[in-house]
Amino acid sequence: MKKKLNVSVPPIPKLSFRRFSESNKARETIGQAPGTLIYTGKKREEKVEIEVFTYNAEVLNEMRSAKVEECLNLYDEKKVNWINVIGLHNVDLIHKVGERFQLHPLLLEDVLHVDQRPKAEDFGDYIFFTIKMFHQNVKEDELNYEHISFVLGKNTVFCFQEKSGDLFDLIRERLRNAYGRIRHRKADYIFYRFIDTVVDQYYLVIDQLAERIEKLEDEVMDNPTTKTLNQLQAVRKELIFLRRSIHPLRESINTIIKSESKLLQEDTERFFSDVYDHTIQIVESLETYRDLLSGIMDLYMNTASNRMNEIMKVLTIMSTIFIPLTFIAGIYGMNFQYMPELEYKWAYPVAMGVMVLVAIFMLIFFKRKKWL
Amino acid sequence: MKKKLNVSVPPIPKLSFRRFSESNKARETIGQAPGTLIYTGKKREEKVEIEVFTYNAEVLNEMRSAKVEECLNLYDEKKVNWINVIGLHNVDLIHKVGERFQLHPLLLEDVLHVDQRPKAEDFGDYIFFTIKMFHQNVKEDELNYEHISFVLGKNTVFCFQEKSGDLFDLIRERLRNAYGRIRHRKADYIFYRFIDTVVDQYYLVIDQLAERIEKLEDEVMDNPTTKTLNQLQAVRKELIFLRRSIHPLRESINTIIKSESKLLQEDTERFFSDVYDHTIQIVESLETYRDLLSGIMDLYMNTASNRMNEIMKVLTIMSTIFIPLTFIAGIYGMNFQYMPELEYKWAYPVAMGVMVLVAIFMLIFFKRKKWL
Amino acid sequence: MKKKLNVSVPPIPKLSFRRFSESNKARETIGQAPGTLIYTGKKREEKVEIEVFTYNAEVLNEMRSAKVEECLNLYDEKKVNWINVIGLHNVDLIHKVGERFQLHPLLLEDVLHVDQRPKAEDFGDYIFFTIKMFHQNVKEDELNYEHISFVLGKNTVFCFQEKSGDLFDLIRERLRNAYGRIRHRKADYIFYRFIDTVVDQYYLVIDQLAERIEKLEDEVMDNPTTKTLNQLQAVRKELIFLRRSIHPLRESINTIIKSESKLLQEDTERFFSDVYDHTIQIVESLETYRDLLSGIMDLYMNTASNRMNEIMKVLTIMSTIFIPLTFIAGIYGMNFQYMPELEYKWAYPVAMGVMVLVAIFMLIFFKRKKWL
Amino acid sequence: MKKKLNVSVPPIPKLSFRRFSESNKARETIGQAPGTLIYTGKKREEKVEIEVFTYNAEVLNEMRSAKVEECLNLYDEKKVNWINVIGLHNVDLIHKVGERFQLHPLLLEDVLHVDQRPKAEDFGDYIFFTIKMFHQNVKEDELNYEHISFVLGKNTVFCFQEKSGDLFDLIRERLRNAYGRIRHRKADYIFYRFIDTVVDQYYLVIDQLAERIEKLEDEVMDNPTTKTLNQLQAVRKELIFLRRSIHPLRESINTIIKSESKLLQEDTERFFSDVYDHTIQIVESLETYRDLLSGIMDLYMNTASNRMNEIMKVLTIMSTIFIPLTFIAGIYGMNFQYMPELEYKWAYPVAMGVMVLVAIFMLIFFKRKKWL
Amino acid sequence: MKKKLNVSVPPIPKLSFRRFSESNKARETIGQAPGTLIYTGKKREEKVEIEVFTYNAEVLNEMRSAKVEECLNLYDEKKVNWINVIGLHNVDLIHKVGERFQLHPLLLEDVLHVDQRPKAEDFGDYIFFTIKMFHQNVKEDELNYEHISFVLGKNTVFCFQEKSGDLFDLIRERLRNAYGRIRHRKADYIFYRFIDTVVDQYYLVIDQLAERIEKLEDEVMDNPTTKTLNQLQAVRKELIFLRRSIHPLRESINTIIKSESKLLQEDTERFFSDVYDHTIQIVESLETYRDLLSGIMDLYMNTASNRMNEIMKVLTIMSTIFIPLTFIAGIYGMNFQYMPELEYKWAYPVAMGVMVLVAIFMLIFFKRKKWL
Repeated sequence: MKKKLNVSVPPIPKLSFRRFSESNKARETIGQAPGTLIYTGKKREEKVEIEVFTYNAEVLNEMRSAKVEECLNLYDEKKVNWINVIGLHNVDLIHKVGERFQLHPLLLEDVLHVDQRPKAEDFGDYIFFTIKMFHQNVKEDELNYEHISFVLGKNTVFCFQEKSGDLFDLIRERLRNAYGRIRHRKADYIFYRFIDTVVDQYYLVIDQLAERIEKLEDEVMDNPTTKTLNQLQAVRKELIFLRRSIHPLRESINTIIKSESKLLQEDTERFFSDVYDHTIQIVESLETYRDLLSGIMDLYMNTASNRMNEIMKVLTIMSTIFIPLTFIAGIYGMNFQYMPELEYKWAYPVAMGVMVLVAIFMLIFFKRKKWL
Repeated sequence: MKKKLNVSVPPIPKLSFRRFSESNKARETIGQAPGTLIYTGKKREEKVEIEVFTYNAEVLNEMRSAKVEECLNLYDEKKVNWINVIGLHNVDLIHKVGERFQLHPLLLEDVLHVDQRPKAEDFGDYIFFTIKMFHQNVKEDELNYEHISFVLGKNTVFCFQEKSGDLFDLIRERLRNAYGRIRHRKADYIFYRFIDTVVDQYYLVIDQLAERIEKLEDEVMDNPTTKTLNQLQAVRKELIFLRRSIHPLRESINTIIKSESKLLQEDTERFFSDVYDHTIQIVESLETYRDLLSGIMDLYMNTASNRMNEIMKVLTIMSTIFIPLTFIAGIYGMNFQYMPELEYKWAYPVAMGVMVLVAIFMLIFFKRKKWL
Repeated sequence: MKKKLNVSVPPIPKLSFRRFSESNKARETIGQAPGTLIYTGKKREEKVEIEVFTYNAEVLNEMRSAKVEECLNLYDEKKVNWINVIGLHNVDLIHKVGERFQLHPLLLEDVLHVDQRPKAEDFGDYIFFTIKMFHQNVKEDELNYEHISFVLGKNTVFCFQEKSGDLFDLIRERLRNAYGRIRHRKADYIFYRFIDTVVDQYYLVIDQLAERIEKLEDEVMDNPTTKTLNQLQAVRKELIFLRRSIHPLRESINTIIKSESKLLQEDTERFFSDVYDHTIQIVESLETYRDLLSGIMDLYMNTASNRMNEIMKVLTIMSTIFIPLTFIAGIYGMNFQYMPELEYKWAYPVAMGVMVLVAIFMLIFFKRKKWL
Repeated sequence: MKKKLNVSVPPIPKLSFRRFSESNKARETIGQAPGTLIYTGKKREEKVEIEVFTYNAEVLNEMRSAKVEECLNLYDEKKVNWINVIGLHNVDLIHKVGERFQLHPLLLEDVLHVDQRPKAEDFGDYIFFTIKMFHQNVKEDELNYEHISFVLGKNTVFCFQEKSGDLFDLIRERLRNAYGRIRHRKADYIFYRFIDTVVDQYYLVIDQLAERIEKLEDEVMDNPTTKTLNQLQAVRKELIFLRRSIHPLRESINTIIKSESKLLQEDTERFFSDVYDHTIQIVESLETYRDLLSGIMDLYMNTASNRMNEIMKVLTIMSTIFIPLTFIAGIYGMNFQYMPELEYKWAYPVAMGVMVLVAIFMLIFFKRKKWL
Repeated sequence: MKKKLNVSVPPIPKLSFRRFSESNKARETIGQAPGTLIYTGKKREEKVEIEVFTYNAEVLNEMRSAKVEECLNLYDEKKVNWINVIGLHNVDLIHKVGERFQLHPLLLEDVLHVDQRPKAEDFGDYIFFTIKMFHQNVKEDELNYEHISFVLGKNTVFCFQEKSGDLFDLIRERLRNAYGRIRHRKADYIFYRFIDTVVDQYYLVIDQLAERIEKLEDEVMDNPTTKTLNQLQAVRKELIFLRRSIHPLRESINTIIKSESKLLQEDTERFFSDVYDHTIQIVESLETYRDLLSGIMDLYMNTASNRMNEIMKVLTIMSTIFIPLTFIAGIYGMNFQYMPELEYKWAYPVAMGVMVLVAIFMLIFFKRKKWL
């Protein structure tokens, strides 16, 4: 994962947000009874799959398939179970899983509502946590996000994600190779590792945003165009949406830290404090870039007004120098019969000299005004 | 209801707010004793009607008519009663209902004051909740709102709305068909369902606003006109008013959650938490669109200034190229007798050549300035 | 009162604030001992009068006169007393009243300090409340305000106002006619009624402001002028000052609600809660109009920039079309002896044709740029 | 004092702030041990003097001299002592005073640090209070400020000021003449009187600022120039610095009110509440003027843009009317041999007529555009 | 140190911040186990050194070398130990030190993460504190910062800095010379002295920023250029980053003050309160400069618009005076055969006179418009 990310930075992938109007939560659920399960995201064709890891320090079994029942047979109360539902568009399946493990209908509603803001809720027997997960689609050079939900139950962690492809390959490796502490600890630890991984990815998202902002700043200083302006607006929009996705995170992680649930072991709290600390750092970075961006917008405006000044100066200098000269030429182009100057021998060179003098006088005037 | 809403989206209905000056609360009530009942909304001609549903798990009776007494006879202390007063312009009727069920005069004052901000108040024997309800007038393709108040008493829910037509048809269906939990639960559950339905509708309102904002953004980028500007201002105004209507909602719903009233059963609290969560999500969306809109306003301004630059450039280039040329032509249009150049054979083509050179020099100058 | 207000709306009266520099509190009181009584308002010529109402459910005595002693003789410990001091410019009289009823010198200082911000203070034996009272001077079509202070003591309410004319005529009527609850209740009720009346008047002030803002918005959209701009600034100033006068009110009324003074009967609290609710609604309205106004300012700016664009376009089109044409005419106005074209028969019509072609080309160019 | 202030108002004195770069706290104290005494203000030549007042209800002794020991001999534990150190540039002397009365080194550090923000600190045996004192230098018509610190100990009040000249002459008079309560009360009362006097002076400062802001507003409306703009910026700067000096005051005075020190007698608290109230009023005024000023800045900008419009309109009208006329004249100035019109008898008047018609048409066009 | 700083002020060194994109925390650590040690700063070639001071009131030993083991042998539990690790790029060494003194892996992670925001954390056995240290590179006239972390353990203070060169030479001197209290006190005192020294340096940073802001303000008033604008943007950026580095400091120092750790002696608290006070003063200064800077940006914009006005006025005056004159000249340049005026003897002087009159009329018009 690490290497791929490093390689793909140059083109600076953009965030592609769901268009507002794509969300259709409102239209379908008004007046519905609470807990009515309605999937509000894009319909997908791929089949919903389930991935199950069941492990303790000694043994690990894993399976990934679209055959739900088979997978769930792996479930073992006495070991740690990670049940990963990949795809939310099969509402019946979600419903079945929910029933089997007695998850609250309101919880399942939030799992399916892809525009749900990040939140954490302690339901007593389990803790619910939902967040936006950003991940990079290597082929399309685009940074997408999806709605992902975690449920921490006794010896079990559920994970509901919109589509296949996630950030957890490193965790899978560690599970399979029994590397580090991960196989020796309870479900709360892997629950923490998931959240930590998703939050760490935000650093990457923000770094890429930062690069784009720096590029735009350079562009504004060198040669601002309408394209620059539209890109500034695009970045601004992304910042607004990132902020909206990340801001409530502080509160949710705090909810977990403050919860005195038995599901969380004592020493896990310090780990969540660490995640909390990261979240705050990310939120502060966002605020910083927001300030920075509004500074760049001001810069753009002032630069535009400077250019206008520049153009006006050229126009004014040209007009102001030549208009009186043209006027003088116009006078001696008149056809009056009695214009004594016309007959003087030196009249032409004198007129030309006067024009040169006028021009020089103008140039001095502009020098003084510091327009030249 | 669902389908109609989906169909009517294309023209994007606008919110039509009461003009400020239509409110006449102030003028009529200054110095009046507290609890003086004055209806502050538009006078309507339709008759005030009362709709009563009386039900338990087994039986349901309903009636809707302008004959108040008849309807109220349906009231049965031992069942759940929903008393829906449709129309607030008959102050006497409201007064009578208030007296019969011993509602506090200050409560009735708030029911009749259509500009009242959302609030919840626990009166001990009953809980008062008022909110703005948005609903779509299908004929006029316009999204209107009205002032609606709920009172949760023992086995009774009162509902006071400005005019006929509301969002509760789905609830009526479920009541009649005894579908779902609704007939098995106490009055607090239907009270919750009303509030939930009204709040859910806000998603729709905001979605439609979002669509209009996106359209305006595209317009600003492509071809901003004065009309675009006026529409931006209109949307901004709507956002301000929506915010004003929705912001206090968080507090009111929290008041209900925090109230330890016996009228609310224990498990209803989680439902209200869910509504609270929706309210926060709505408020955050509003803030997001606010930020977005101010970004679009900036964009408009910068785009306008870019266009000005564009115009100035064309003007300056044209003037700057032709003014010196015209000056040269002016010189040789002078009528001095002694202008030796005039008689040279090649004078005319040379003069033309000089002009072409001046023009080329100018063009190079502009190329360098990056104006071309 | 009601009807007069309705009638006088059309010309939309303006608020006339004390010019900042009229206040002279600072200059006179620096280094003075605390409680030194100095009147900081305008000196008035009318004599200070005292109005006394003494009543219980059965009897009512009233008197209004400049003879203080005589009026105060009406005072009766066992009844409810309303002592209304009309005019603050007679410091000695205030001092005398203060001494007779043992009011704290710091309280009297605040009574006389007309720029005092709204505040409530519980002095134990009495509660002090000061507020700005807006009232309409019917003759001058102007909405003035004055500094008014209330003191609620045992069976007594004091009222100190700057000048004669107030909003309490309706209350006087009710007292005289023993209409409603007012004669049956203690002093705290009439104290509440005064404050409620003053606060209700704010709705009117804000309604009138709203009308003016709406008018200005229409003007900005239709035909903004410098006058519009100055009026916008004036309204903005009024909003700032209104906000300053009304903002602290929330806190002061809350002070009364929270105070556990024996002077306030238990059921009066709900009335004050109602006033508190009104205050919040007023403050929110102010914020709304503030937002609205800043939106209108933006609109003004953008409209101005649109007009500039419009003007620039006309100038540029005219110049750009005619400058090359004039140049061509200039060429054939040159007096070179050897200009073969001049002698061709069709030269003139051809030259004219070329000019027409250039003009058409320009027009097409502008059409493309969407300037036409 | 009072009268002088009234007289010197007309020219509206300006605040002269220490330039940022004059402060040299940072450079001298980095890495120094805490409590190292370094004076960070301007070096002065005048000698540091000490002024001592020792009094009770019966007796008063006073002395002012540069001979420190002599003055301090006046100190009498049983009476109230006011020890006023005039000048901070003699660090040794401050050190000596500090040692004699056992003042904490960190306190003395704050006394000498002239850029110290207002603060109050309860050291147990004494209360420390530091504030900026504004006073008017009558000769230079300028409003200066200095750093002043107060220490309230048992029966003693210390006062450390930067230079001679303060606001306490009225207090000195009252002490000498035993006028009012002042000689009958403990040290905490005179401590309060000092702070009250310094805070009251802020009203004056803000009044003068208000006058200047009003003048600038008039100027912006009538005839805004670059000078106006620079003055607006100057006032803005002053507001920022005033705010910075006054804002922390609320907190410091609150610290005194909340402190349960035995040094403060019970009834002094109400006096400090009064000062607190003044502070809040001053802070609110500052916010008001800040809002007002930013409104005036907007006004300036819009007025400038209006003037631009005005200029553009004149330019455009002149150009647009004359450019086509000049073109027509140019056509008949061409020297083609075959221009039949030239020979027609009525050609000249017809051409002139056409020009007049074009001009009239243009004028009508501008009338319609509302540019005339 | 003191003197060098004073000398190098004139050229006003700039802050050089890490470019955003230089940080590579995100890319390397996603999905890693917590406490995985990864250095996120610039790779350096110099060897990591360790400096150890071991002292009590009587004895002091010091050593600085790249041979870690040797240095750590100096460690003496019963004396105070200052262990200064200079250079963070040798992750193994940090790991070894961490293991030997049992520091938590998450703490070491923060030590190595050079973009870590300031924070303080109480780990029970030790207190962790991290901050940005600014110091001046005398050769390059540039103000750099580095990430520095402190750990206060029992009798031990650890210090981890990015590179050699710090602000602690004065402290080293005092240690060696046993000057002042420093050798007599516990580890918490030297811990405080380090933090105090780093915070005091911020005053210097802000003073230099202030000087640059003042210079820019003068430039904007006198002769604003594009360079000025870019510098304003640069300073703005620096302010944003300074703010981000300094803001969280308040909270961290407060964490230390509030912690009831046994590692901190009672009287050290007052010292930390003093540091807290400095931090607040620094934060307030930053806010002040922020306000000031945005004022200067406005000034820039308005000045630019004033200059535009100025240019437009010159252009308009020149055009408006000469365009009608040139038109008149053009008329008499027409070649109509029947133009009676051409033959009049006084026609030429009369025409000239008319032109002069038109010019005078224009000048009067402009005088009236106050454009001259």
